[in-house]
Amino acid sequence: MNSNTFGKLFSITTFGESHGEAVGVVIDGCPAGITIKIEDIQKELDKRRPGSSALSSPRDEKDIAMIYSGVFEGKTTGTPIMIMVKNESQKSGDYDAIKDLFRPGHADYTYYKKYGIRDHRGGGRSSVRESIGRVAALGIARKILDSYGIDIFAHVTQVGNITAETFDRDFIDENPLHTACVEKYDEMSAEILRVKALGDSIGAILEFRAKGVYAGVGEPIFDRLNARLSYALMSIPAVKGVEFGLGFNAVNYLGSQMNDEIKSDGFTTNNSGGMLGGISNGDDIYGRLVVKPVSSILIPKKTIDIEGNDSEIVTMGRHDSCVAARAVVIVEAMIALTLVDLILIDKSKKL
Amino acid sequence: MNSNTFGKLFSITTFGESHGEAVGVVIDGCPAGITIKIEDIQKELDKRRPGSSALSSPRDEKDIAMIYSGVFEGKTTGTPIMIMVKNESQKSGDYDAIKDLFRPGHADYTYYKKYGIRDHRGGGRSSVRESIGRVAALGIARKILDSYGIDIFAHVTQVGNITAETFDRDFIDENPLHTACVEKYDEMSAEILRVKALGDSIGAILEFRAKGVYAGVGEPIFDRLNARLSYALMSIPAVKGVEFGLGFNAVNYLGSQMNDEIKSDGFTTNNSGGMLGGISNGDDIYGRLVVKPVSSILIPKKTIDIEGNDSEIVTMGRHDSCVAARAVVIVEAMIALTLVDLILIDKSKKL
Amino acid sequence: MNSNTFGKLFSITTFGESHGEAVGVVIDGCPAGITIKIEDIQKELDKRRPGSSALSSPRDEKDIAMIYSGVFEGKTTGTPIMIMVKNESQKSGDYDAIKDLFRPGHADYTYYKKYGIRDHRGGGRSSVRESIGRVAALGIARKILDSYGIDIFAHVTQVGNITAETFDRDFIDENPLHTACVEKYDEMSAEILRVKALGDSIGAILEFRAKGVYAGVGEPIFDRLNARLSYALMSIPAVKGVEFGLGFNAVNYLGSQMNDEIKSDGFTTNNSGGMLGGISNGDDIYGRLVVKPVSSILIPKKTIDIEGNDSEIVTMGRHDSCVAARAVVIVEAMIALTLVDLILIDKSKKL
Amino acid sequence: MNSNTFGKLFSITTFGESHGEAVGVVIDGCPAGITIKIEDIQKELDKRRPGSSALSSPRDEKDIAMIYSGVFEGKTTGTPIMIMVKNESQKSGDYDAIKDLFRPGHADYTYYKKYGIRDHRGGGRSSVRESIGRVAALGIARKILDSYGIDIFAHVTQVGNITAETFDRDFIDENPLHTACVEKYDEMSAEILRVKALGDSIGAILEFRAKGVYAGVGEPIFDRLNARLSYALMSIPAVKGVEFGLGFNAVNYLGSQMNDEIKSDGFTTNNSGGMLGGISNGDDIYGRLVVKPVSSILIPKKTIDIEGNDSEIVTMGRHDSCVAARAVVIVEAMIALTLVDLILIDKSKKL
Repeated sequence: MNSNTFGKLFSITTFGESHGEAVGVVIDGCPAGITIKIEDIQKELDKRRPGSSALSSPRDEKDIAMIYSGVFEGKTTGTPIMIMVKNESQKSGDYDAIKDLFRPGHADYTYYKKYGIRDHRGGGRSSVRESIGRVAALGIARKILDSYGIDIFAHVTQVGNITAETFDRDFIDENPLHTACVEKYDEMSAEILRVKALGDSIGAILEFRAKGVYAGVGEPIFDRLNARLSYALMSIPAVKGVEFGLGFNAVNYLGSQMNDEIKSDGFTTNNSGGMLGGISNGDDIYGRLVVKPVSSILIPKKTIDIEGNDSEIVTMGRHDSCVAARAVVIVEAMIALTLVDLILIDKSKKL
Repeated sequence: MNSNTFGKLFSITTFGESHGEAVGVVIDGCPAGITIKIEDIQKELDKRRPGSSALSSPRDEKDIAMIYSGVFEGKTTGTPIMIMVKNESQKSGDYDAIKDLFRPGHADYTYYKKYGIRDHRGGGRSSVRESIGRVAALGIARKILDSYGIDIFAHVTQVGNITAETFDRDFIDENPLHTACVEKYDEMSAEILRVKALGDSIGAILEFRAKGVYAGVGEPIFDRLNARLSYALMSIPAVKGVEFGLGFNAVNYLGSQMNDEIKSDGFTTNNSGGMLGGISNGDDIYGRLVVKPVSSILIPKKTIDIEGNDSEIVTMGRHDSCVAARAVVIVEAMIALTLVDLILIDKSKKL
Repeated sequence: MNSNTFGKLFSITTFGESHGEAVGVVIDGCPAGITIKIEDIQKELDKRRPGSSALSSPRDEKDIAMIYSGVFEGKTTGTPIMIMVKNESQKSGDYDAIKDLFRPGHADYTYYKKYGIRDHRGGGRSSVRESIGRVAALGIARKILDSYGIDIFAHVTQVGNITAETFDRDFIDENPLHTACVEKYDEMSAEILRVKALGDSIGAILEFRAKGVYAGVGEPIFDRLNARLSYALMSIPAVKGVEFGLGFNAVNYLGSQMNDEIKSDGFTTNNSGGMLGGISNGDDIYGRLVVKPVSSILIPKKTIDIEGNDSEIVTMGRHDSCVAARAVVIVEAMIALTLVDLILIDKSKKL
Repeated sequence: MNSNTFGKLFSITTFGESHGEAVGVVIDGCPAGITIKIEDIQKELDKRRPGSSALSSPRDEKDIAMIYSGVFEGKTTGTPIMIMVKNESQKSGDYDAIKDLFRPGHADYTYYKKYGIRDHRGGGRSSVRESIGRVAALGIARKILDSYGIDIFAHVTQVGNITAETFDRDFIDENPLHTACVEKYDEMSAEILRVKALGDSIGAILEFRAKGVYAGVGEPIFDRLNARLSYALMSIPAVKGVEFGLGFNAVNYLGSQMNDEIKSDGFTTNNSGGMLGGISNGDDIYGRLVVKPVSSILIPKKTIDIEGNDSEIVTMGRHDSCVAARAVVIVEAMIALTLVDLILIDKSKKL
């Protein structure tokens, strides 16, 4: 029940700080007999790696994963699977100049207030490097979802005020921004580079979708599928809002327009986002989330030091200007982990 | 860890269906020695009661609460507090005509798919009557928050396309819609009555706010304050989206605009919604959520019966046209329960 | 995860004090579609009821159970099942004379130290009346175990220094002491009555057994079947020791004698108590536990009052002299609840 | 809530198999600001290491621990602490000859039945090497207990039929068997060596004690201190029985003898083992447990192979003949982890 553990039956416990020895994950509750190769895991990690395009941070982190337990002769054994990535590109010297200052927008201030400790090295535990453990677990969760015929993906639908207008599934994996809109890709990329040149950062909206989820996943009253997904997605740094189906736009609909009618061959619309009463209805699960602009910027801002004195800060270092591209696989990880957990829970309630 | 239980240290377990014997709650983990009168609980329940104005359902449910355990000589004893409301206004006959039909927008279809059982009486467990248990617990949670100087409230900021423009805290409790906007109250009310006359329903947006939360509440990585609040709020029927601080609007901000600067006398802005890295920063916690239009409408819609045959349905019965007014206290309950739980967790991590 | 909840997937939350309004239970995670009649529950409760023979307390508690939720048209619906017994025979006046004194052997002193509250009425929450909720849940758990062909029972094997020598399964239900030994029943009963006449009390040993548990139940590393059963059984008031298979007697065996050999038609012995590495091996699960003599006695003992002053106490009231007979069904309840929970967990880990 | 995690607020998640890459632990919920040196952890690990005397297995496992996360500049940060020991002495070839045979007394058979996987390398996850993670966590738990003035220790009181008669606290750490009885140490050691020479193994009884626990630790109803301790201790491989205070011997006492009287200067006796109603009473917490003889012996025994064919087995390899000496620190670990967790829970319930 501790807060570095996610999931009840298929659970992950992540550990590690951005500039510590390593970051990793212990996956517990994974069924035995699943075929796993290290490539299944590395493939997902490579998607969140910075340094892969001009759009992302220039840090060149290799992030090579290794499995330390729980897999024997290529199969899961039902015991805890520990996967770890050693931290190599640790330029914590970058942070010495600001070691007593709280970076605005970051968790520095609140961690200090909560724990009384200032780990100034790149955000410590609050760094997005923590997500390596989650993404490593995605490699295994996808294997389980595959066996249920469930397909999960996310893509960028808005950067600043530039909005995707078309959807090409294949294109998502073909561009470093992971948008599904061929037409707007150039414009979105240019906007990120423009903001980056200013030393500034920009926010984005992502859509996520799960296809093939059978009707019946999600546990009323509190572990509703939408509640559990919101919990999962809001745990990703920078996410400030989550919505399902029509989402906030539902305020503009009457009940007679909103309700998805049911016919013998299925629902006629999917305004609900594939859930009724918190349980999947067999239609696509979908929704959107917003990521705020990255907090690390090269523009001076007012702040205080750990003594409470007024000061000013510029966040040097090698940062993304838009976290959207790298967030895609983290979003997929959190959705996959949630679904596997709720599917196992659903199984457990049937004699 | 079961899904009718919410909270880890201060937890509630709700039970009961809309047309069963009773609905109620067991509150566990409540500190001993808190003074509780039944009026503290009844006062909250009265806020969610239908039948109190023309804006809400004409069902006249008294919803009289009684404490069955955990309180001795007017004080909590540290043992489980059971509070129950007997179901009296049970016109389940209203539902006989549609007993084999799935109501569009409702959980009928998904509960049947999940459990293989059709409890046709007013939604059974998926009814908003379940929230009685949560609201009863609010009466106790508020006592604990009071001792920390924390004040929680929610109010309606949008009905259909009518948006609140001003904020008068006192007005929230003086109007049955619980909006804080004196100027727009008449227009909002009229819109609800107009839609009601059509036999239709309408959605709304609510803002929520917690004042006085000390810096340090929220547990990284997964029990972030925003993640736990999202989980809590998304478990309320009809909620389709949740956002904090600037929320989805953050996509229109650059980092240099978004980041809340820090001065020796506090944060200069509150774009983050009072949280950094999932931990409260001492500023107001605030955000918004959307409730979809009520699914029960008097307009015929296509559906199927439990055999899968095409059919049509009109949801007779006595329903709200807009759930916003009654949702206010449920929103307050979920925020209060989340905060008390996270405060107790935070306490436990300090030697 | 709160401490009035037992079980992870099939869980019970009990509430109520000995002299409050009611005692009861919320059962969560029960699969849907199980046929339940109130008689299934009442039958178990009647076994733990005092007043049924000269061997037990003369209190005549009817303990009539009622189902308040979770069952519709005679079947479980998959939603929380609340079952409650109202407290009727509340002679709390019996306790007024000792309202400021701590009864030796009872939890009065420690509850006061922990909670700062003195609920002097018959032990309050620490009363064995709390077990009513557990035993009510047994009525449902047995239905699930029946579907797996699992049979659970307990019986009294020792009272003071009188030890059962033979085993007659049918006899267990035919005598109020619930021993399986026809030959020693009279002697055991006489010993209890002799001690009762002295105003004193006496301890006992019970054996428990589960037949038909398939190989594979129990979750390493910490939710071993033996660990979970110990946790369950030690939560019964008065239990001071638990052992499985040879138990403490294993100290007198060499490994070559202890190890159960395996043949193609099964294990040749069952020294382990039906478990290896914390997982059931298909053989009978069995063990023993000891219940201390009842703490309420008519013999004066030294104690202190809530101010810390030295005093003396005699525990008047209507008490058992030996709790063993009534403990039998509570032991069965805790074993049944543990097994159902672990079986559901085991199911959830198989794709 | 998964079964490789122990504890609710101060929790450990262990991972690793006897012949995998590594064994280790993630400690979550540890308060920030605790001074930790790697020596604090290594010191405890050295106590469970085999190869340190003629009484234990000749395997020379160095078991060098390293901290990978959660400690910064010598202090805990409030984030997960990962500690790992790489497996070096992996002679899994020892096990090739018996790779398809189930070793009697071991978990081979039940793991295979449960998971469908045969990890024949020295017990895999069921190996006592798993306890390395628990013992590493003891190094940190002791720091927390020190701050409460709590002292925990265990010692061997019986080997076969040789029973300790005297108690010398200092002697416990001065002999490789960790008995407190100077007089019987030679006899106990000789008995272990005698049995070892036969290729056989022998069981033992340990006493454990916690001094300085304040009154009020333990959570009714189910997380009673005795219930949680039993759960903890029964999760140690080879433990077949646990008892507190008088334990099974309570059957020989009348209530008038058993009840610990209370005087203004404390309890006059401690028959209860320092607990009433599952809550500590301020007196010493104590009890005993039995460990069965080690299952790996050099004497041929009947078994079957994974196809179900009758066969015979001798467990070669380098094994202990009596696990008692090495169990001492594991017992201390489980008691310490339980107490820290329950103390943090108790803190959380006070406003």
